[in-house]
Amino acid sequence: MSGGAEKVKLRLLPSGREEYVQSGRTFLAALRRANAPVTSGCGGRGRCGLCRVQFLVQAPEPSPADREHITSSDLATGWRLACAHTVERETTVLVPELAAGAQDKVRSAAGEVQALFPAARQAAVTLPPPAADRAHVSRLEEALGRKVLARPWSLSPLSAAETGAPFTMTTVGRKLVALVPGGVPGGPYGVALDVGTTTVAAYVLDLGSGREVGARAAHNRQGSYGADVVSRVSYAQQEGESGLRELQRAIRETINHLLEELLEETGLEPRDLVHAAVVGNPAMLHLVLGADPACLGQAPFAPLWRRWLTVDAGVLGLELNPGAPVDFLPVVSGYVGADVVAGAVSCDIHNASEPVVFLDLGTNGEIVLAAAGRMVACSAAAGPAFEAVGIACGMSALAGAVSRVEIDDDVRCGTIGSAPPKGLCGTGLTDAVAELLKVGIVDSKGKMAGCGGSAAVAERITGEGKARRFLLARGERPVYLAQSDVRKLQLAKAALRSGLDVLLSQAGLEAAEVERVYLAGAFGAHMRVESLVRIGLLPQCFREKVEQTGNAAGAGAKDVLCDRRLARDARRVARRMEFVELASEKEFGRRYVERMWFPEQTREVQL
Amino acid sequence: MSGGAEKVKLRLLPSGREEYVQSGRTFLAALRRANAPVTSGCGGRGRCGLCRVQFLVQAPEPSPADREHITSSDLATGWRLACAHTVERETTVLVPELAAGAQDKVRSAAGEVQALFPAARQAAVTLPPPAADRAHVSRLEEALGRKVLARPWSLSPLSAAETGAPFTMTTVGRKLVALVPGGVPGGPYGVALDVGTTTVAAYVLDLGSGREVGARAAHNRQGSYGADVVSRVSYAQQEGESGLRELQRAIRETINHLLEELLEETGLEPRDLVHAAVVGNPAMLHLVLGADPACLGQAPFAPLWRRWLTVDAGVLGLELNPGAPVDFLPVVSGYVGADVVAGAVSCDIHNASEPVVFLDLGTNGEIVLAAAGRMVACSAAAGPAFEAVGIACGMSALAGAVSRVEIDDDVRCGTIGSAPPKGLCGTGLTDAVAELLKVGIVDSKGKMAGCGGSAAVAERITGEGKARRFLLARGERPVYLAQSDVRKLQLAKAALRSGLDVLLSQAGLEAAEVERVYLAGAFGAHMRVESLVRIGLLPQCFREKVEQTGNAAGAGAKDVLCDRRLARDARRVARRMEFVELASEKEFGRRYVERMWFPEQTREVQL
Repeated sequence: MSGGAEKVKLRLLPSGREEYVQSGRTFLAALRRANAPVTSGCGGRGRCGLCRVQFLVQAPEPSPADREHITSSDLATGWRLACAHTVERETTVLVPELAAGAQDKVRSAAGEVQALFPAARQAAVTLPPPAADRAHVSRLEEALGRKVLARPWSLSPLSAAETGAPFTMTTVGRKLVALVPGGVPGGPYGVALDVGTTTVAAYVLDLGSGREVGARAAHNRQGSYGADVVSRVSYAQQEGESGLRELQRAIRETINHLLEELLEETGLEPRDLVHAAVVGNPAMLHLVLGADPACLGQAPFAPLWRRWLTVDAGVLGLELNPGAPVDFLPVVSGYVGADVVAGAVSCDIHNASEPVVFLDLGTNGEIVLAAAGRMVACSAAAGPAFEAVGIACGMSALAGAVSRVEIDDDVRCGTIGSAPPKGLCGTGLTDAVAELLKVGIVDSKGKMAGCGGSAAVAERITGEGKARRFLLARGERPVYLAQSDVRKLQLAKAALRSGLDVLLSQAGLEAAEVERVYLAGAFGAHMRVESLVRIGLLPQCFREKVEQTGNAAGAGAKDVLCDRRLARDARRVARRMEFVELASEKEFGRRYVERMWFPEQTREVQL
Repeated sequence: MSGGAEKVKLRLLPSGREEYVQSGRTFLAALRRANAPVTSGCGGRGRCGLCRVQFLVQAPEPSPADREHITSSDLATGWRLACAHTVERETTVLVPELAAGAQDKVRSAAGEVQALFPAARQAAVTLPPPAADRAHVSRLEEALGRKVLARPWSLSPLSAAETGAPFTMTTVGRKLVALVPGGVPGGPYGVALDVGTTTVAAYVLDLGSGREVGARAAHNRQGSYGADVVSRVSYAQQEGESGLRELQRAIRETINHLLEELLEETGLEPRDLVHAAVVGNPAMLHLVLGADPACLGQAPFAPLWRRWLTVDAGVLGLELNPGAPVDFLPVVSGYVGADVVAGAVSCDIHNASEPVVFLDLGTNGEIVLAAAGRMVACSAAAGPAFEAVGIACGMSALAGAVSRVEIDDDVRCGTIGSAPPKGLCGTGLTDAVAELLKVGIVDSKGKMAGCGGSAAVAERITGEGKARRFLLARGERPVYLAQSDVRKLQLAKAALRSGLDVLLSQAGLEAAEVERVYLAGAFGAHMRVESLVRIGLLPQCFREKVEQTGNAAGAGAKDVLCDRRLARDARRVARRMEFVELASEKEFGRRYVERMWFPEQTREVQL
């Protein structure tokens, strides 16, 4: 402690809080001590340009580091690097981190999070000298000015260090995760993991800057044990303990392989990855954690746990820093998972002042309705039609899949990668049915007519009754839409739409009162909203209100890494979300039958 | 919760506390809910006989279970099993667990701890039915009436369980460690580990009854990397990371092998061992935890950490229940370790009202002086003489080692196992020098005379000057005491005695003011106190005050498992203990030179 140094007053804007700090320290150090930490990516060495504060009066002369990182217009308005100036006298500074409110989660086009409040922080420390009756960890704490939770082995670098040698320490909350001699160029780094039944996505973030430095996705290697959640849960049940271990190993290998690729791409080491957040449906979270998912395969489909969980990476066998806390976002019920919670947080629906709907379309479609301080959620078993499973010419959304269909005088199909058509994916299926409804070849009961549309269109109809089909694309391998495909889409959309109906009715709302609709998930991101309205999956009044968010779950996982206040939000959202079990709602059965029909089509699509 | 059941008043003695509890519950359940847990080893099924309470008035009719477990005289004074009776009306009971104060750590001759307050507890639970929006862990919590910290994988047994199926759950503090369907016969079980540089001891305790069900000791497999702490620390330093890993593996294997033997002996499974406490010197703790001990090999010899630590067994690779918390008792300095803290707690020196000395004799002799609310401690580098290392005919304390020497008209030697004499162990060395002092063959400066004693004794002296030696035992391989052995013992005892002098002087006490002296460790347990006084290791006034405690460190480890209040005591003791660095005390150097001399011997030994 620096002996007789004088204390001077530091007024922090926008709160106006006053703190007495030791003169002679840098503003960066003083603000940290005053529990008003400013983001820094370089440990205060003037290299990262992140620790900006604004001097509203008497701004000091810009330093070379200021000039390097701050534009001249910002310099003129008093912005300086907190690490480049020392506190000398009573001063007033604006600390942008303290100004960050609910609206600060602004993402740029490149998906960057611009305001930061990560749990993971790096600090450059120079330790006071050792003493016989003082543990080395206390030297760290003295240098840092706060308590640290440290595993003994993570303190090893202190053991043989010279007195006065500098260290960079990385903490997540109070936990010491990494301690390395000298300085480090960037970071700390975190990993957001979105564990889907089919696809697993991993994102590496520089939590010092909020920048995404790498992103990868891969097929979930559990695929060989079953395509959907139900079949994997059954596998674990049939095979018992060993089946569970196999499924856990498969997803662990998927994740570790993604991490290896990302480390190679970014030049980082496993020990550099100090924090992780995992989202996924409840079954995937059970399997990543090695917890028996049998309860998700039998009524009442309750998960083993619901709360936010944190487990060290080493315990899970994930190839991060073994001491990195891995946060698992909370779940709501057996089929409304951390992916939905993360998506809801990422879309900020819990703070919406007007009624908002969040929809994640997939094998299970999860729907959340937030209105008047309540959040009701359900999971509708749509079946795999949106993934084109069980469809006559169905295929995954890969090159050559028909993904867009337009029908007027003739039929035009768009394929993924503009490759020659090979089959029909979920968006193509939905488009095809929507367009056939438009031209009257499919009627509101879902029956495909033997004629209709222009001559060029009508001649594409072949077969009779249940074997009737419509030729979408000619070629080496013709792509058809079968009568039975229309029936499957009817079942899927009926489940989702009647789920939405039930939520609206529980909240006492009309569809028209909903102000905003977030459509999440890969299918939701690529689907034409007009077709969803035309087949009646969405009410017509939603048409202008839809925002297609892409991977909202993954975005939510990134958000909680970058801003720990959102972790608190995620807990609240999960606690507040009321789960509506559709199977036990009488209304659901009635609506489901009604919603099997498509809306009557006129020139203007109507509800 | 059980509907309209009436609440009735339960008065708990000796505190007089009043609690309202639901009628119809057993007293065992009611007391648990009222946060006055009574020890039970069978989950309330009338089998263990542990959950005794005393009804001071209106004792219920004894049940068959009462008659089975409680003597008729105790039945007559109102003792009953808390699980065998239900609360029906306002009642007053004496709960012995609540009466247990500082003095309750009564150990029987067999080393059993008779009063229990373990952190590990077992409870038989029957779960309320599942529901879609309620996690299974909440059912556990409802059944138990309190929050539980559970890892998802430890909840797996709930996943496929029938509604209404009974479980036995084991918690350590708030943490769920084991959950098994049905009932279990005993336990919960814990392991106390005393990790010595040379020997590792493991004790398995039934924490439901306090009974030690198994105990084993083995050589520390780190022995091949060096006999003492210093050489192992050097090894780790020279070999770096891989050396540290080797040393960690060696000690882990030592412990796991002991555990395997104990499991075989007791018929338990690793998952049954739900809690562990580890004591040892700081270097051993660093190595068990895989923390670089280099700091213990260079001034100022500070440990990496001092505090109480808890790490899951699975993280350390110890073959207990992977979720078992392994507690590492706190350390005071680089050479005053958890073994000393545990020994001090086990001897209750922190509660002593009069001055007390605790001495653990070994390669490093640790001394603690507790007086007037202070505790001062030091570690005196005695060298390996007490382990007979570097002694002409030195050997470990194994069969054939001369361990007792008496000299009057002739010389009589006792050997370990009464085997033919093969060498000299530490106690034999000390005895031999003490007896030669008594008969005047060794003088107070440590010089061995060429004659003295009876003719039969004198003829055993051979050689001249530094090569002079005394024949202790004839036989296949004669056992001698060499002049150089006397010098080594002088160095060792001078270090310990001057350490004691320094502590007394720091506390402003005379030796005579000390009321009680605890002599711990294997050497201390087997050494004749008279010889220690004769060579001047202990002041003469200690003679009648010595209690030889045996493995006080191991006893302390057992104590904290059986009574979690002692864990708090251990933390306090470690925090309060003031470490005195002998090397930096001027007085130590002066005293050390003085204490090289032996006390002048008269007919009656004097100081």
